[in-house]
Amino acid sequence: MELLLLSNGKTDEHPGLLGWARERVQALLARHHVERILLIPYAVIRGDWDQRAADLAESLGVQVQSIHHAADPVAAVQQAQAIFVSGGNTWRLNQQLHELGLVVPIARAVRERGVPYVGWSAGCNVATPSIRTTNDMPVCSAAVLPALGLFPLQINPHYLDASISGHMGETRDERLAEFCAINPSETVLALREASLVQVSDDRIDYWSVRGQSYKLFRHGEATTEHNDVTPLAALTPFMPA
Amino acid sequence: MELLLLSNGKTDEHPGLLGWARERVQALLARHHVERILLIPYAVIRGDWDQRAADLAESLGVQVQSIHHAADPVAAVQQAQAIFVSGGNTWRLNQQLHELGLVVPIARAVRERGVPYVGWSAGCNVATPSIRTTNDMPVCSAAVLPALGLFPLQINPHYLDASISGHMGETRDERLAEFCAINPSETVLALREASLVQVSDDRIDYWSVRGQSYKLFRHGEATTEHNDVTPLAALTPFMPA
Repeated sequence: MELLLLSNGKTDEHPGLLGWARERVQALLARHHVERILLIPYAVIRGDWDQRAADLAESLGVQVQSIHHAADPVAAVQQAQAIFVSGGNTWRLNQQLHELGLVVPIARAVRERGVPYVGWSAGCNVATPSIRTTNDMPVCSAAVLPALGLFPLQINPHYLDASISGHMGETRDERLAEFCAINPSETVLALREASLVQVSDDRIDYWSVRGQSYKLFRHGEATTEHNDVTPLAALTPFMPA
Repeated sequence: MELLLLSNGKTDEHPGLLGWARERVQALLARHHVERILLIPYAVIRGDWDQRAADLAESLGVQVQSIHHAADPVAAVQQAQAIFVSGGNTWRLNQQLHELGLVVPIARAVRERGVPYVGWSAGCNVATPSIRTTNDMPVCSAAVLPALGLFPLQINPHYLDASISGHMGETRDERLAEFCAINPSETVLALREASLVQVSDDRIDYWSVRGQSYKLFRHGEATTEHNDVTPLAALTPFMPA
């Protein structure tokens, strides 16, 4: 299995979509001899899907087919050399994956054929067991919480400690503590901006372009911060390919 | 119908739960000769429900019964003189209202008996047609989106324009614009901290203790800001009691 799960797609200091992780993404594509990637842009509600595909192609120097041009989206997934899932609204993305019947085809492509899966923000959320740790507004009338489950832990992307002065709503830490209180057997991996987890076969890696740590949330325990992947690896046993 | 829908429960500058709106809440209780209020604390995941009830009693100088002590929660609603719904996690609150069979009893109490409904934050969200404009994390495994529908528009509480430096996720305005793009026939009322809408029979009022405006979001239109309730009144026709 090849997973690259990124907190976010853009940063202020690195130009281009996935620019902050470009070398890592390109190395992954080269290792798998990927000539064309399949983009799943359904999370993008207000932007242009073709523009998103063009941005990705330009940033990575690779051919990009957006799935919305495929006559048969399921066949497009079955033939994909690599699957890239864009950020945007997690609810809309997950709804579309289910409605278009893409959940099982994506899972089979990634698990059985070893097709690389690269997802950022909402595309990172849907790679986990459910979208219960999204930051997004549930804008759709019908909600589906279970997601692809490619990665075994809930991830909270765009994680940040800061809060806005004067805002009386819950902080992110409070929201994640609520998640753990309701789901006491689960662990949440909080990924700060410009950080990622990568799974290659049975090996997991953590990387932050800014050298920042990741954070683990568990019910009844203090949160912990790590740069070393070892504590995360202990929570994510992967079967060898 | 008597609705008091508040963006939030606490502010930095006004001590006590609902302290910033105390006079308005107390006037409402006096007008309805309320001696004891029924608190619905299910949104509170990590706090103590009895403490929440005690805080409310102390702040308002009124007796408070929390529904979790009622042998029959439905009967408690049916006998309530006033229903106060606390903030916290909107998903958990709405799930509990549905699971405990309280949706119809609350709606009947408010619509048919004129029992005052006071809700802040999550308690404001569930008074609208659905919880699609909550800011909260969907921490529950099962999601229910339809809510009480006492107020006809979606409300976004804790509304703020500001964003956190370096955060690459969507701003609140972007999230609400996404909502409107997916739901183009709907209008969202954004309530800043320490502001409220009040419905008394067929009359609607808007008030901010800080003198701030409310904001309306509609698809394909620029957002608008108002201190005058008139534009909001035009969107919320209420039947006379």
